[in-house]
Amino acid sequence: MVLGLPPRQMGDDVLAGSLAVNLRFWDRWKGMNMADMGSIERYLEGQREEHLGALCEWLRIPSVSADPGQSEAMLQAADWVQDRFRKLGWKTEKLGSGGPPLVYAESPPVPGKPVVLVYGHYDVQPADPLELWKSPPFDPQVRDGNLYARGATDDKGQVLTHILSVAAWQESGQKLPLQIKFLIEGEEEQGSEVLGRTLPQIADRLKCDVIVISDSSQYAVGQPAITYGLRGIAYFELRVTGPKQDLHSGSFGGAVANPALALARLLTAIKDEEGRIQLPGFYDAVVPLDPVERRNWQQLPFDEKKFAAQLGVDQLVGETGYTALEQRWARPTFDCHGLMGGYQGEGGKTIIPSWAGAKISFRLVPNQTPQQVGQQLRQFVAQHSPPGVRVEVIDLHGGLGVVVDPNSPYMAAAQQAVTEGFGREAVLIREGGSIPIVANMVAHLKADVLLLGWGLDDDGAHSPNEKFHIADFHRGIRASSHLWNHLAGCSPRAQLQS
Amino acid sequence: MVLGLPPRQMGDDVLAGSLAVNLRFWDRWKGMNMADMGSIERYLEGQREEHLGALCEWLRIPSVSADPGQSEAMLQAADWVQDRFRKLGWKTEKLGSGGPPLVYAESPPVPGKPVVLVYGHYDVQPADPLELWKSPPFDPQVRDGNLYARGATDDKGQVLTHILSVAAWQESGQKLPLQIKFLIEGEEEQGSEVLGRTLPQIADRLKCDVIVISDSSQYAVGQPAITYGLRGIAYFELRVTGPKQDLHSGSFGGAVANPALALARLLTAIKDEEGRIQLPGFYDAVVPLDPVERRNWQQLPFDEKKFAAQLGVDQLVGETGYTALEQRWARPTFDCHGLMGGYQGEGGKTIIPSWAGAKISFRLVPNQTPQQVGQQLRQFVAQHSPPGVRVEVIDLHGGLGVVVDPNSPYMAAAQQAVTEGFGREAVLIREGGSIPIVANMVAHLKADVLLLGWGLDDDGAHSPNEKFHIADFHRGIRASSHLWNHLAGCSPRAQLQS
Repeated sequence: MVLGLPPRQMGDDVLAGSLAVNLRFWDRWKGMNMADMGSIERYLEGQREEHLGALCEWLRIPSVSADPGQSEAMLQAADWVQDRFRKLGWKTEKLGSGGPPLVYAESPPVPGKPVVLVYGHYDVQPADPLELWKSPPFDPQVRDGNLYARGATDDKGQVLTHILSVAAWQESGQKLPLQIKFLIEGEEEQGSEVLGRTLPQIADRLKCDVIVISDSSQYAVGQPAITYGLRGIAYFELRVTGPKQDLHSGSFGGAVANPALALARLLTAIKDEEGRIQLPGFYDAVVPLDPVERRNWQQLPFDEKKFAAQLGVDQLVGETGYTALEQRWARPTFDCHGLMGGYQGEGGKTIIPSWAGAKISFRLVPNQTPQQVGQQLRQFVAQHSPPGVRVEVIDLHGGLGVVVDPNSPYMAAAQQAVTEGFGREAVLIREGGSIPIVANMVAHLKADVLLLGWGLDDDGAHSPNEKFHIADFHRGIRASSHLWNHLAGCSPRAQLQS
Repeated sequence: MVLGLPPRQMGDDVLAGSLAVNLRFWDRWKGMNMADMGSIERYLEGQREEHLGALCEWLRIPSVSADPGQSEAMLQAADWVQDRFRKLGWKTEKLGSGGPPLVYAESPPVPGKPVVLVYGHYDVQPADPLELWKSPPFDPQVRDGNLYARGATDDKGQVLTHILSVAAWQESGQKLPLQIKFLIEGEEEQGSEVLGRTLPQIADRLKCDVIVISDSSQYAVGQPAITYGLRGIAYFELRVTGPKQDLHSGSFGGAVANPALALARLLTAIKDEEGRIQLPGFYDAVVPLDPVERRNWQQLPFDEKKFAAQLGVDQLVGETGYTALEQRWARPTFDCHGLMGGYQGEGGKTIIPSWAGAKISFRLVPNQTPQQVGQQLRQFVAQHSPPGVRVEVIDLHGGLGVVVDPNSPYMAAAQQAVTEGFGREAVLIREGGSIPIVANMVAHLKADVLLLGWGLDDDGAHSPNEKFHIADFHRGIRASSHLWNHLAGCSPRAQLQS
């Protein structure tokens, strides 16, 4: 009986070319897949503690890419993940220069099968405000079925599911049914500069049919999702400078422009009270929402009041004429991430501050580019700068949005895998966040992309008390294990297109 | 010959009632004053190094009243100044409770002569931003004829001139010609809470005819001034709260009100582009400027372009319809002193911050009260709070403005003293800054007030690199020495009014 044979031998059966064998194989493939998924699943069950422990190890390394003081930790985090691939016996090396290294690894080629590139990042957001964390951000702790730590969900916990799933295939004696490449970078939270620069040179090595990324969220608790769209981003710092030093606000106040108020005036002018962004030509490139898409999203369960209550606000506020899902997923926005300048300590200090600044960004939808928006912002600032101050626009980072075809065979394979991993069919959604490198990779590698988010909206990806629901971590590993199997059932992209 | 006699005996001459003696005294009083001012001046010349050294000692104590971590330094600064009075053999004690102590001291009464109360403060503004100081703020250093340190001019250096001048009288063998009381507090930069609370209980002890305060500036380099008006102040913190924690600006941006932008909108609404403050009823209590006063000020030399260039701005900006001096001295204003909230570190962080805040104040002119303005602000905030956020108005401190009679005999005495100390007649000005306790003391003590500023506009009183021009420090001591003499020639206030 063939059932007990390892998958390689099943493959040999197929190659033998007997119709009977082929039919028998086909029945089995539909029923239990090509590989012995049962033995992989049993293996995963036995490794739950071990897997969580591995994640905790990685999370203890404070790899904050925004913090120049953590460059040592950045290298440690890169080494840690590279070691995982070494232990798998994979070819692995560090790529790129002038920033945190790119960790690259690949399993042996499997001819005739699609090649998968798993992308993820080992860098994390800054942890401040530290005082709001219930447990230290880099000392992972389990509470209420969640693992709390900076990076738990974004993205160490999520990308690790794929590393652990390929390990599960190997450790349980199954041969990976297709070639898998991993590219794990260290600057995703800062605009992926190293990868952006290196991508043209390594495009050949990264060649693949489909890119798999788990760096997003399910639609809701118990409702997994596959994401087919991301917004882009254009991130800037505005810096308003007035007098050459702080001035006594009594002696000078009334005759000297106040940089903090000038900044406030400028920020206020950028977006009107209807939520419409006032940069010249800002909406020119924006494609109107597809009526079918709007209808689909209206069918998704979404309770505005409950959502607002979860966030702790009394009401949602957004661009007039759009639902909250549309505002978050498919409309461009303007936000301010930080205000700086003047006296911030206890009590009062009576100064006209010499300068004030703001971290700001625009989320973009496909067809908008950060370059265009940067030009529009500079033009706006030139027209609207209040008198008596100088305004500087500093580019921090940017990236394009992306929307992929929700009807590809790879998407269907992912649907099956998610259903097997999470016990429920995924809904198709877009996501408001940005993974700027995705559009870049899609363009350079001419590959399809699968955005399989194992997180939850309330994971606090960029907030204090970031968490990853531990059950979803394990479900993610399981879904990932099935994903290799189902993707191996697809044709390579070239054949699909021909 | 009477010339060599000490002043007490000269006084006795007068009391003797002989017309001839009186005439002789009067001639001498006009020519060389009552006391042997020559010997005091010689004494001062010999003590210049010593006096500067004493100031440096005091400046080394980081008595930042806004900083709860410096409460020990606050006590040290109080002790330091109290020791000066002990060494003079004066009665001295610490008054008040629940905050930095009030240092009180008095010389023996001199019947028939006015009583003077010198007011000053030993607390200083916070020193940040520290990185902008060329030398450490609490390590006084001499450069280009200036002494650089936090508190050099505001107010340790200035109040010390009066302590050193009474010491000069005593040390050079002259008896002080009138009773002088000192009240040196430790919370002027934070709204004088302890003194405000304690004032009603100690009003009897502080009883005086005239209050002398040196906590302001000359009109310009080489042009001393006497200040007859101060603005009031109403200082608040605005705090805008949105979601219960920072949110990922990609996943949520577009549907959730951004507290930083809501704060910017609110700040922008408070003052229009003409510089008019929009709080309801804000200008109701404001008395229009006196045409005579406006004419007088127009005759003061003031070069707007040069002034702007000194501050490092390309133009002055203020309320339409008023000159820069009027805007700074006699019109109410609105300023923002600090912006807070969200991410302020290196690079970018993509959050909707949970909250944002601003330190703000209104400078007030006489008849406006901080209480009224607080009500007006709360009313304004209630009407203009953007949706989806909560806005809190926190009172920090406040005080009334004050304008005194520029034609009193005490003012004439001060004019003479300043001329003798600085070698040039003082111009009469108002000052945009606030010493909130002044109006309070004037009201409680029913005393006149002399605002004799030895500083300069560019001393950086609340800025990095605060300085005191060393020549002005010594001139101030000299003017102060003469002041006691000239004030002793005035009648007590009760007699003036009767």
